[in-house]
Amino acid sequence: MAIEAARLSPSLAAAAAFLGRRSPPTAPLLRRLCLLPPRRSLLASASTSSSRASSGGNGRVVALSSSELRKRRGSTSSTPTPGEDDKLRSLRRLFARPDIAIDAYIVPSQDAHQSEFIAECFMRRAYLTGFTGSAGTAVVTKNNAAFWTDGRYFLQAEKELSHDWTLLRSGNHGVPTTIEWLNDVLPSGSRVGIDPFLFSSDAAEELKAAISDKNHELILIGDFNLVDEIWGGSRPAPPKEPTRVHAIKYAGVDVASKLSFVRSQLDENGCDTVVISMLDEVAWLLNMRGSDVPHSPVFYSYLTVEMSTATLFVDSNKVSEEVLEHLKKAGVKLKSYEAILSDVERLAEKGAKLWLDSSSVNAAIVSVFRSGCDRYMRKRGKTGRQIGKEASSDDPTTKKRGVQNMELNGLYKASPVTLAKSVKNEAEIRGMKNSHLRDAAASAEFWCWIEEEVRNNVALTEVQVAENLLGFRRKQDGFIETSFDTISGYGANGAIIHYNPTPDSCSSVGSDNLFLLDSGAQYVDGTTDITRTVHFGEPSPRHKECFTRVLQGHIALDQAVFPERTPGFVLDVLARSSLWKIGLDYRHGTGHGVGAALNVHEGPQSISYRYGNLTALQKGMIVSNEPGYYEDDSFGIRIENLLLVKEVNLTNSFGGISYLGFEKLTFVPIQRKLIDLPLLSPSEINWVNEYHEQVWEKVSPFLSGNPLNWLLVNTRPL
Amino acid sequence: MAIEAARLSPSLAAAAAFLGRRSPPTAPLLRRLCLLPPRRSLLASASTSSSRASSGGNGRVVALSSSELRKRRGSTSSTPTPGEDDKLRSLRRLFARPDIAIDAYIVPSQDAHQSEFIAECFMRRAYLTGFTGSAGTAVVTKNNAAFWTDGRYFLQAEKELSHDWTLLRSGNHGVPTTIEWLNDVLPSGSRVGIDPFLFSSDAAEELKAAISDKNHELILIGDFNLVDEIWGGSRPAPPKEPTRVHAIKYAGVDVASKLSFVRSQLDENGCDTVVISMLDEVAWLLNMRGSDVPHSPVFYSYLTVEMSTATLFVDSNKVSEEVLEHLKKAGVKLKSYEAILSDVERLAEKGAKLWLDSSSVNAAIVSVFRSGCDRYMRKRGKTGRQIGKEASSDDPTTKKRGVQNMELNGLYKASPVTLAKSVKNEAEIRGMKNSHLRDAAASAEFWCWIEEEVRNNVALTEVQVAENLLGFRRKQDGFIETSFDTISGYGANGAIIHYNPTPDSCSSVGSDNLFLLDSGAQYVDGTTDITRTVHFGEPSPRHKECFTRVLQGHIALDQAVFPERTPGFVLDVLARSSLWKIGLDYRHGTGHGVGAALNVHEGPQSISYRYGNLTALQKGMIVSNEPGYYEDDSFGIRIENLLLVKEVNLTNSFGGISYLGFEKLTFVPIQRKLIDLPLLSPSEINWVNEYHEQVWEKVSPFLSGNPLNWLLVNTRPL
Repeated sequence: MAIEAARLSPSLAAAAAFLGRRSPPTAPLLRRLCLLPPRRSLLASASTSSSRASSGGNGRVVALSSSELRKRRGSTSSTPTPGEDDKLRSLRRLFARPDIAIDAYIVPSQDAHQSEFIAECFMRRAYLTGFTGSAGTAVVTKNNAAFWTDGRYFLQAEKELSHDWTLLRSGNHGVPTTIEWLNDVLPSGSRVGIDPFLFSSDAAEELKAAISDKNHELILIGDFNLVDEIWGGSRPAPPKEPTRVHAIKYAGVDVASKLSFVRSQLDENGCDTVVISMLDEVAWLLNMRGSDVPHSPVFYSYLTVEMSTATLFVDSNKVSEEVLEHLKKAGVKLKSYEAILSDVERLAEKGAKLWLDSSSVNAAIVSVFRSGCDRYMRKRGKTGRQIGKEASSDDPTTKKRGVQNMELNGLYKASPVTLAKSVKNEAEIRGMKNSHLRDAAASAEFWCWIEEEVRNNVALTEVQVAENLLGFRRKQDGFIETSFDTISGYGANGAIIHYNPTPDSCSSVGSDNLFLLDSGAQYVDGTTDITRTVHFGEPSPRHKECFTRVLQGHIALDQAVFPERTPGFVLDVLARSSLWKIGLDYRHGTGHGVGAALNVHEGPQSISYRYGNLTALQKGMIVSNEPGYYEDDSFGIRIENLLLVKEVNLTNSFGGISYLGFEKLTFVPIQRKLIDLPLLSPSEINWVNEYHEQVWEKVSPFLSGNPLNWLLVNTRPL
Repeated sequence: MAIEAARLSPSLAAAAAFLGRRSPPTAPLLRRLCLLPPRRSLLASASTSSSRASSGGNGRVVALSSSELRKRRGSTSSTPTPGEDDKLRSLRRLFARPDIAIDAYIVPSQDAHQSEFIAECFMRRAYLTGFTGSAGTAVVTKNNAAFWTDGRYFLQAEKELSHDWTLLRSGNHGVPTTIEWLNDVLPSGSRVGIDPFLFSSDAAEELKAAISDKNHELILIGDFNLVDEIWGGSRPAPPKEPTRVHAIKYAGVDVASKLSFVRSQLDENGCDTVVISMLDEVAWLLNMRGSDVPHSPVFYSYLTVEMSTATLFVDSNKVSEEVLEHLKKAGVKLKSYEAILSDVERLAEKGAKLWLDSSSVNAAIVSVFRSGCDRYMRKRGKTGRQIGKEASSDDPTTKKRGVQNMELNGLYKASPVTLAKSVKNEAEIRGMKNSHLRDAAASAEFWCWIEEEVRNNVALTEVQVAENLLGFRRKQDGFIETSFDTISGYGANGAIIHYNPTPDSCSSVGSDNLFLLDSGAQYVDGTTDITRTVHFGEPSPRHKECFTRVLQGHIALDQAVFPERTPGFVLDVLARSSLWKIGLDYRHGTGHGVGAALNVHEGPQSISYRYGNLTALQKGMIVSNEPGYYEDDSFGIRIENLLLVKEVNLTNSFGGISYLGFEKLTFVPIQRKLIDLPLLSPSEINWVNEYHEQVWEKVSPFLSGNPLNWLLVNTRPL
């Protein structure tokens, strides 16, 4: 599944610099009676014990995929609901309150953890604007309400926003950025408010610096979210799903060993504590899983790891006896989700050296940490600058260890978990391989079924197709849920990279055009993500030419061998050059990282035409291989397998280093009739035949009857 | 010809980030009676009228290639000459002089223009150390003399340096950089001297900042070069070769038009003057050529372009009546080479806004400019900071134009000439094509001749081969000189990427191993650079396998089609992936820019595995395509053609943009017997056959007799 990078946290965004599909947050039409108690001010309070986001409210919220949510709310979402004006009016009324006193408020799409999929109660931007797409930023001033989204969503935004909103089409010529607009619209010296939980520290710093050009002040309102205030009782309750232990046979490494790795990293970097805020990092580190958000088996929490202890900040209702025992064994204590702020404050005030990944840790935490540090410094009678110098340049030990970005007592660099999590151990690889075979069996059953249906002229909508696919997957052992909203696009819909069919407006799948199906699942032992493009009738020469060019790119990347220390972007051109030769291209990356029974998109690696991500591909990493081609208003093509990076044994090894290559994890036939055979070289034909031979060998044991026969027919040599 | 980037100016280095061959400066054994009058202090003087580098001395120095120089000086260069101690002793005596007062002196390899090939009189590092290789930096302190060079030169440096020198092997584990070493060896607060003419302003700033960590002070000694002082009367005189007009039929665009382009750039960037210091940029802009240095048709000079005037700073003896007339027509005034400093000072003092490419303009000029600006500011009663702000952030006009790096009145960014020069016009392309055909004819005659010689068991040394090749080229119309020292490497010598055979120590060329020949020429209408690798006997399977892999990389890059705005490094992997598949690689870039009847290496574009150069390949640029493979102590392979970037006409044009590809300029057969045919795909075989067909069609009209027959045989289809 191709993804868009703009809204992701930098580590994930860098990893998967894509232009593509993200699951859109849905409008909060599932209303629940739940009023969150107000949080205390970040700035005024020293010990923060009040609740945030997860407490209060007794309504039980189950994580629902947006397609399920959409089903429940019916068709009302695409027309502006009445009362939008009221929301803006209520919000602006708050501006004037003495404890708020702002001239503008920015409402981003994020939750407090920079998650790709977020719980309903955090979909404030969708609630405020009525816009249900996944990407967008709303800014409300006393006189204006502006909304930014990118080209994927212009039409949808025009439909869903009320007349009170001005739509700013990001990326179009002459359209100002949020910051430029703020600097232009607001009188000099205005106060711009944000919820610091919803901005990474880096993003908030950048915003602060940029608006200071016009002497605007950035006001961190951490006490309460203004949208939540107007949302009031109808705001859904935070999710409260139970967590579970991710069994050691799937995790491969126990929590104690992972914690001890993190501690060795702390030691090496001259720190004594790290704050982990990315939900998949917490889940990976603690061998735990949850279901607070759709598609990702994570749970809302923070984790601090100190040299001799570790603390999980989570709603204790989510922690069963078994999980508690599991945590206790690894020396992990439990505190409430909200206690993260007071704990960071306490650590700062005792002079702890904290490692904070400021690209993902939110501004609320970093701000509390810095205030705590200031108090610590004042107590010791030193200025921050002196301490900074002491820590970063005069201390030879620290310096030799290459510590950078050490400021006061904070080290701001990528979390030590990001890279470790991306390099899979043997058990994780086994789980990924096994789950992919079961997923392939479900796929084969599905494709066998749908071909029969189409042959019998059964009218199936894109949504029905996705639901039936889910049905086949559900039958597989260890199935949990989809790993993202299924992209089921027939004909012109396939050309919309982020297409998400709705029951009331989607197309029927026919036999006159290409059908693109991008889907994936979460299993107890692994995560899958696969795209196949097929034609149920007679493909045109154009279909075949484009499909074959995409396939050639897919094959070229699959076959690549490269020296260790090669960043993924170096390989991106291999997947494009066959398309470039005829003047075609695609506007998304070629590969993203995938978690093992975790997030379907993870960093730090990626294979993309954006050159900023220098992370080398390493043995044990998993990446997608998904070149495509999209002809507007006509059809879309994407061929996606997941690949495991492995060492290849060659007779030569120039430079005395390792050479790496890929091993396929995905084993589902590629439709043979879409291949324009004369375009393929003998070695490419060989690749297809060998792949199909492998598919037959690996997947046929899982099948019987018609699906087995379907597999046989569809894995015949070219 | 593959080049090494480390010592080049950033613009050239970025363009051609290679590890490879550079022409080594030679030891100054051609001694001439010439004592330069002392220059006045940069810091003390306001109007600098004294001479620098080019004045004084009447000895005529002709530009000689290093191979010619080596011939003259015979075989003495490879053993340490007596008296090295004396040089160090004399140098250190200068340290104590009250007008100098330094604790260390850095002697780099550069001239004042960051040239790749430099005149003998500027080879101070070679004179001081006795080391004749092209790359290296010497640092002398009161107690130490240290010399850094890279892996290509370790053996040579061990041989050539006296025991007074410590060799520091750059790139080896644990070896400090020059800066680390200085900071380690010198007592805190030392004074480190440099000749500011020999450091780009950027390099000097970087050095200054880095040594300030240990409170060392950087002392710019612009008054005289300390090595010149001890070199004394035996220092060669600066070159005084006449310049010539580069005819409009080759240049394509007249000087007035080029100057008016530069002025439009000045206007767009809010400047009124630009200082051009790269010698090839001056030559290109003024449609002039010279012969002050070997291999590059340039002349020592600076150029300033103001809105209504332009001034060439050059030794007037080099300017004939014809050239003077040519310059006058374009409104270009003449001043002495040395007057650049006083003129920059004058401009600064009158408040001119100067554009300086600080990656190539030397620290002497920038330093004089900044002092002048300070005086201007003081006169106006403003501080630099105020003015800086005025120019860079409060002035909306300037801001809208995207001016960056505006400091005081200086704009520090890449010269406006660099990119313009790299995009060839029709006349330049025609000249490049024509000269390549004549060069190909010379090549065919040469290869025909040498095959016959080897067949007849005539013993030929690598140097003799190079000389004979030169003989064939010399017969061609418009031949001027070689464009770099010929790399003629038989067997194991071919594996030394920077190999330069010496008459007394080189191998004979036989028929048992591969022979690599990398050479090029300057013609009146174009510049060539070609590498072919051949076997005069029976190549081994290993030879054929490696050669074929290199050829596949060459073909893949040659056939690439890519969207406009693609940086060259994106394509580098295409040339390597065939080698990577069997665990092989090469440690140099794949392509460098080439000037039109100018420098054989030019920026800003390159095709390299280093990812720093984001310059897009543009229609009209010329690049080399030269993948290789080098098996230490065994053999070397490189296949190099020059390519012109052109627009390709395709039926599709995704994104509504242009797609680019390459057109070959080089037409010399690739040895067919080295090709392992079963390794090639049908499309690769087709490429070879089509190429050879083109070679025959284009070059046969220039040949007759045996060479014509040789061409026929060697262009037969596979």
